Amino acid sequence: MTSKRPPTAKPYCDELRGRVEACGVQITELSTHLQGQLVAVHPAYDLSFDGFAPAECRNNPAARTAWAVQQLKWAAKASRNLGIDVHVTFSGALLWHTVYPWPQRPQGLVETGFGELAKRWLPILNAFDEVGVDLCYEIHPGEDLHDGVTFERFREATGNHKRVNILYDPSHFVLQQLDYLAYIDIYHEFIKMFHVKDAEFNATGRSGVYGGYQGWIDRPGRFRSLGDGQVDFISIFSKLAQYDYDGWAVLEWECCIKDSEQGAAEGAPFIENHIIKVTERAFDDFAGGQPDEALNRRMLGL
Amino acid sequence: MTSKRPPTAKPYCDELRGRVEACGVQITELSTHLQGQLVAVHPAYDLSFDGFAPAECRNNPAARTAWAVQQLKWAAKASRNLGIDVHVTFSGALLWHTVYPWPQRPQGLVETGFGELAKRWLPILNAFDEVGVDLCYEIHPGEDLHDGVTFERFREATGNHKRVNILYDPSHFVLQQLDYLAYIDIYHEFIKMFHVKDAEFNATGRSGVYGGYQGWIDRPGRFRSLGDGQVDFISIFSKLAQYDYDGWAVLEWECCIKDSEQGAAEGAPFIENHIIKVTERAFDDFAGGQPDEALNRRMLGL
Amino acid sequence: MTSKRPPTAKPYCDELRGRVEACGVQITELSTHLQGQLVAVHPAYDLSFDGFAPAECRNNPAARTAWAVQQLKWAAKASRNLGIDVHVTFSGALLWHTVYPWPQRPQGLVETGFGELAKRWLPILNAFDEVGVDLCYEIHPGEDLHDGVTFERFREATGNHKRVNILYDPSHFVLQQLDYLAYIDIYHEFIKMFHVKDAEFNATGRSGVYGGYQGWIDRPGRFRSLGDGQVDFISIFSKLAQYDYDGWAVLEWECCIKDSEQGAAEGAPFIENHIIKVTERAFDDFAGGQPDEALNRRMLGL
Amino acid sequence: MTSKRPPTAKPYCDELRGRVEACGVQITELSTHLQGQLVAVHPAYDLSFDGFAPAECRNNPAARTAWAVQQLKWAAKASRNLGIDVHVTFSGALLWHTVYPWPQRPQGLVETGFGELAKRWLPILNAFDEVGVDLCYEIHPGEDLHDGVTFERFREATGNHKRVNILYDPSHFVLQQLDYLAYIDIYHEFIKMFHVKDAEFNATGRSGVYGGYQGWIDRPGRFRSLGDGQVDFISIFSKLAQYDYDGWAVLEWECCIKDSEQGAAEGAPFIENHIIKVTERAFDDFAGGQPDEALNRRMLGL
Amino acid sequence: MTSKRPPTAKPYCDELRGRVEACGVQITELSTHLQGQLVAVHPAYDLSFDGFAPAECRNNPAARTAWAVQQLKWAAKASRNLGIDVHVTFSGALLWHTVYPWPQRPQGLVETGFGELAKRWLPILNAFDEVGVDLCYEIHPGEDLHDGVTFERFREATGNHKRVNILYDPSHFVLQQLDYLAYIDIYHEFIKMFHVKDAEFNATGRSGVYGGYQGWIDRPGRFRSLGDGQVDFISIFSKLAQYDYDGWAVLEWECCIKDSEQGAAEGAPFIENHIIKVTERAFDDFAGGQPDEALNRRMLGL
Amino acid sequence: MTSKRPPTAKPYCDELRGRVEACGVQITELSTHLQGQLVAVHPAYDLSFDGFAPAECRNNPAARTAWAVQQLKWAAKASRNLGIDVHVTFSGALLWHTVYPWPQRPQGLVETGFGELAKRWLPILNAFDEVGVDLCYEIHPGEDLHDGVTFERFREATGNHKRVNILYDPSHFVLQQLDYLAYIDIYHEFIKMFHVKDAEFNATGRSGVYGGYQGWIDRPGRFRSLGDGQVDFISIFSKLAQYDYDGWAVLEWECCIKDSEQGAAEGAPFIENHIIKVTERAFDDFAGGQPDEALNRRMLGL
Repeated sequence: MTSKRPPTAKPYCDELRGRVEACGVQITELSTHLQGQLVAVHPAYDLSFDGFAPAECRNNPAARTAWAVQQLKWAAKASRNLGIDVHVTFSGALLWHTVYPWPQRPQGLVETGFGELAKRWLPILNAFDEVGVDLCYEIHPGEDLHDGVTFERFREATGNHKRVNILYDPSHFVLQQLDYLAYIDIYHEFIKMFHVKDAEFNATGRSGVYGGYQGWIDRPGRFRSLGDGQVDFISIFSKLAQYDYDGWAVLEWECCIKDSEQGAAEGAPFIENHIIKVTERAFDDFAGGQPDEALNRRMLGL
Repeated sequence: MTSKRPPTAKPYCDELRGRVEACGVQITELSTHLQGQLVAVHPAYDLSFDGFAPAECRNNPAARTAWAVQQLKWAAKASRNLGIDVHVTFSGALLWHTVYPWPQRPQGLVETGFGELAKRWLPILNAFDEVGVDLCYEIHPGEDLHDGVTFERFREATGNHKRVNILYDPSHFVLQQLDYLAYIDIYHEFIKMFHVKDAEFNATGRSGVYGGYQGWIDRPGRFRSLGDGQVDFISIFSKLAQYDYDGWAVLEWECCIKDSEQGAAEGAPFIENHIIKVTERAFDDFAGGQPDEALNRRMLGL
Repeated sequence: MTSKRPPTAKPYCDELRGRVEACGVQITELSTHLQGQLVAVHPAYDLSFDGFAPAECRNNPAARTAWAVQQLKWAAKASRNLGIDVHVTFSGALLWHTVYPWPQRPQGLVETGFGELAKRWLPILNAFDEVGVDLCYEIHPGEDLHDGVTFERFREATGNHKRVNILYDPSHFVLQQLDYLAYIDIYHEFIKMFHVKDAEFNATGRSGVYGGYQGWIDRPGRFRSLGDGQVDFISIFSKLAQYDYDGWAVLEWECCIKDSEQGAAEGAPFIENHIIKVTERAFDDFAGGQPDEALNRRMLGL
Repeated sequence: MTSKRPPTAKPYCDELRGRVEACGVQITELSTHLQGQLVAVHPAYDLSFDGFAPAECRNNPAARTAWAVQQLKWAAKASRNLGIDVHVTFSGALLWHTVYPWPQRPQGLVETGFGELAKRWLPILNAFDEVGVDLCYEIHPGEDLHDGVTFERFREATGNHKRVNILYDPSHFVLQQLDYLAYIDIYHEFIKMFHVKDAEFNATGRSGVYGGYQGWIDRPGRFRSLGDGQVDFISIFSKLAQYDYDGWAVLEWECCIKDSEQGAAEGAPFIENHIIKVTERAFDDFAGGQPDEALNRRMLGL
Repeated sequence: MTSKRPPTAKPYCDELRGRVEACGVQITELSTHLQGQLVAVHPAYDLSFDGFAPAECRNNPAARTAWAVQQLKWAAKASRNLGIDVHVTFSGALLWHTVYPWPQRPQGLVETGFGELAKRWLPILNAFDEVGVDLCYEIHPGEDLHDGVTFERFREATGNHKRVNILYDPSHFVLQQLDYLAYIDIYHEFIKMFHVKDAEFNATGRSGVYGGYQGWIDRPGRFRSLGDGQVDFISIFSKLAQYDYDGWAVLEWECCIKDSEQGAAEGAPFIENHIIKVTERAFDDFAGGQPDEALNRRMLGL
Repeated sequence: MTSKRPPTAKPYCDELRGRVEACGVQITELSTHLQGQLVAVHPAYDLSFDGFAPAECRNNPAARTAWAVQQLKWAAKASRNLGIDVHVTFSGALLWHTVYPWPQRPQGLVETGFGELAKRWLPILNAFDEVGVDLCYEIHPGEDLHDGVTFERFREATGNHKRVNILYDPSHFVLQQLDYLAYIDIYHEFIKMFHVKDAEFNATGRSGVYGGYQGWIDRPGRFRSLGDGQVDFISIFSKLAQYDYDGWAVLEWECCIKDSEQGAAEGAPFIENHIIKVTERAFDDFAGGQPDEALNRRMLGL
């Protein structure tokens, strides 16, 4: 998705899909994490993120944003042509450097930030709506959409745009100690994509959530291969099954310890073993029948 | 409140209130727990609850219900005349004997039960509305209103009647292992009364929540004097302060171990020590001032 | 077991058993849950349970009880003829509607209830004793035998009848938050049958153990397929092995989410992986030998 | 109690008691921890404990034991003459050096040890029985009576002598991670004395229960002043009240950090605030009356 | 400390101190939180922190830094003249906007940042060293010194300057879920000041540590008045006593709920009740005496 | 390793190794647990451990020690000739009987004990150093090296001899409630061998860590087959991988319940499934490149 000539043409997409599926594999999603990030970059991070843009847009934030917006729109079309109904991206951030409120944020700052963010994303969201693809933001530290509250802020700022949805990745919630199971109860109607990534958080007397500018291997919160972390995937798959989530469960490897090939070889059966076929009948449904109001009233002594 | 000639007349109430307040005491609430219970009694409990009614209504459920409804209406008027804005009662129950779903409840049974319950309470609720008094149901096992879900069912069945409110007593939630802190987050707008009662739950290999028909002293879940149980009152008072609860915190003694006078002597200062005077300013409010949109945009790099 | 002409005749049983075993399957137990339930039904539940009886006994509690008692006696004989030493049933209930003690139960009520219950079951227990089959009550909410305390009450009321035993199913203890591991330590000598069923309990701010009359999928306490719930089966199998339990471990599927066929396909190997072959020697038994009192006294400095 | 001319004469005791009580103080117990220890000493500890004995018995275990036994008998008489019904001591130990079973203890060793221990204590126990004083063993590491199991072993070895009782001090159970609340449920009938001492256990990556031969301040398990440790005294006082314990609650100071005078000044009101006056009536006893079998049967639908 | 004419002159300080102490109060510390912050400000926060500087330095980072450095040096002198040996400040931050490593920080960035930070602070540290005052950094989110790891980085970058010390405030560790008790074990030799502030962290399904740009009252992590939060002050005071901390325990009020005057009125006795007078003798020191190597060898069987 | 003619000759070792490896098996370590134990035995345990020595050394501690020292030296040579770089043993104990400090240990006792222990081991350690084999003490109750603190004491007493290393077996830490994960963080540089053994600790009201002289099956702390206990092996293997442990993970079966063959059959794949191939690249290493100091300074606003 980083090339300048995106694969949006239908014949190209058909052919690509055909080749891939002939191998017994399926394209389940396109991603524009890097491009989405560039839709909104606070100047403090201009240098950090410039490498995500093509050379001709570097050192030119306005051009970089314009490029990113165009990429996103093309991604909508490409998804449609590949027969995919969901797409994942990052929101970018204008406010992240103020995540800890010291000093106090001035009044209205947060509203201004989300107002601008929504203004930039609305044309993109409309482009996704035109082709019937849901745009799923990966809720992620560093982005203005990094938890439930900020997702709600953004959604409201877009006028509750119907294409504002969520990619659920519990690893990012472990690292911020958010209740990732209650999260599903609250936001399940917006969860249209799911990345299966594990993580752990083990605070010490030396470091906590902020991590002391250490590398991944040394941070108390870090990503792990499936089954090696603390995520309760049994409960996650149960909740997603209960709420009739019907998308893919996509393995994501970002482990600071285990080799990626071992992570993949173990991760695929790990996911397979967690998938739940939803029952179609209640286990105590041997009485059944139509409601009988007269009987009910007798049971209640009425 | 159990006499047949209720103290509803204004002059009587004024005089009573005067005498009481002369002693430095205040009447903070009237209660009709026993009468409210009789508004709805499933026949299985007719014998158990008959003692709550005056002799002439016993063995006559219809008369007993009529008497209870009248008592409640008078209680509304008496509260008004005593200058009290809230009133506590029990909902009664038609469905409690089916609390464990064995066998499966027939379709529609719960809806029928709450429909009938609402039908009986609506005239009472209207009577309370006429005098501007909130009716607070003590959420309590044995009643059809025993948790948040059943409170919502009932409120909906009354057409969201504005006088349907809650008396919050955390002890009943400890005994059913409900999250009594999250409860405040969800239902705080309805909490108009607060009974400060402690409780504990200590399951063993012999008994759990149901208690095996044992007496209070032997049940894993039991009421205790303030400070002797497991209720986190610091967090409760914090949440009520945060949501600007401005009613009374009423000590209720029901301890299976400690003497009632000791419970009272210790309980009053216990409550006093927990009461929070809400701050009127933010601790980091040394910058302050009006929102400055231009400044905000500069801070966001816009 | 619900037909009117029960399979008690020896030749019939032999032939049935032969046919079944020819398929590589074994009949491990007969069950009379529904019939046992009908041995004792409080009138509040007459309508609920009437469907368990044959049509000619409905609306006739006395006839229904008589029918149930006869069924149980035949089940004893059928078990014997099928070469099975244990049988599972429910106790029925006279007291369940008083499980929460509001209002206070009158003195002697519990004793009266268990006295009557024992009186009804003693002829059945004797019938089981005659054929050398243990009657195992599934300890279950809704039944008068729903925890350890009530099992003890009943056993005592039967004069400690030797055929009064237990079917252990931990799922029912999770749902009442009873310590199901300590339960084995206390009652292991009575545990003659074992149903392997998983469960979970996740209280919220809306509902706790009582469940608010919700359906299974929405209750905080609910049954799950093996491995998807909270039951610590490793410790259960360890304790049963330690106490030399030598009966079957029978898979029971009652999951509110997962399909029954998936539950069965995963459950069978789940059980197989948990079964423990008990060691016949101590790991540090390389010294061994007979007790040597003189050596012992020297070691103690005597 | 370590002088050779013990205060057993009645006139002496009367006078002592009079002088003490004139100061508003009461002698609540005599202690023979050091003498009891010397009733049974494994040779490995001869040097360690020799300082507890008078000079003429040192380096002479047999004489030392005889001296200790005599002291104990005199302590019985002195307790009686001071009007005290309970006495505290240590059991001594023959087996403590084998507390960790490496290598495997030879068969019969434990039985031999407890047999010898009981043989030595029986004459003492009989002396206590003659004067009607209960002998309470402080259950304590280093003694053969260091937990519930060893208390049961010893009691059985004495033929369940009625004077074998317990001084309950929860601090010693925190340090061995024993469930000190369940302990009360099991052994309450034997608990006749109670030392109120706090303790904490905070394992690290460097040391656990055994402590690595460190001093008290550095051990993960250590004694603390009342309220500074981890003991749940609210639950302890509740359980003792529930089981009608009617002895003294005696403050014991052994804190590795806090000054003893501060410990005493804070400890006395700490205990006073925990003492529970037991209620004489049930909170829901407003119905009451005699059992009414006919009513009960109607309630059960019989 | 924000005035331009700082109170560094000895006579002024003597007089100020005299007036204050005449009121029975003591000046325990001077603080330069705001000035220390300005020693190092990343441009992303220029606007946010500019208000901390006098008007003539605003919009001029170089002048602002120079002003701050001068203020700090004067604070050293003022502390000395007031007879105070410790001083508290903030470190400022160059790296805070990169606290979450997305994208990956370039190699060497952290080293460069701490190198620059140390370069700016060394002249200040030397000024403090000249007057014999310890400079204690309050370890705090938003500062480059926000946990143990970053304190170590900074100390190393200053060549382990002896005046680099710590103000310990556990509330900031609760909010980042760092183990604040183990922290004392690791860094106690550097802890020269102590702010007693409480805090709590209650994650939900909507928000975690990052807080979603919410105000203090709504963040899962928030400051509270003493005793209303989750900080285990008994263990903190125990550890500080164990390590012979001999500085002040200073109450700091920053509660999002409780009124500041109530917080102060309750906080002062709260601290007083936690202060520990350290014992001067071991509780089991009744043997004592000089080491006796011969005895020791006999005890070990040598 | 207990025969008198040890297999130290190189040709013998080569031939042995060849035969073993021809079967597809590898000799991963030699063990001298029993001989190491005999290097230091307190007289209280002379009878207990005498069976570990050959008949001609029994009842003769000096001869027994000499024999043990010689065995250890031969084991060094045998390990070398078998191509093995690590060796496991026990330290023996002089102080274990004083593990609980009642009465207070005399001053200097611990130092004397470790001094003697080091004196006996130094010639052995030198013998191991000569052949380049690490001597790994299994940290184990009953030995003077039973936790981290005692390992440090011993290492220091040997002058930090480079061959003093650790065999890590978490089961012994579960049984003393030591933090076995933090242990790896502290001592990983010394961990050269690893025994994979599971364990559990379940305290009751009857017994805690000390176990009441019960047999293994009844002790609260007991060894279990892999996966049946409480050890968090996922975290252990993660930490060992993180610290680049490159030795063997050796299955040890000591289960008080499960049959040894089942334990072996399940244990081997259990270990295989836990082994981690360490990744060679960071998951977010798509930027990379050399450090660019100029860029770094720009990012920090310098």
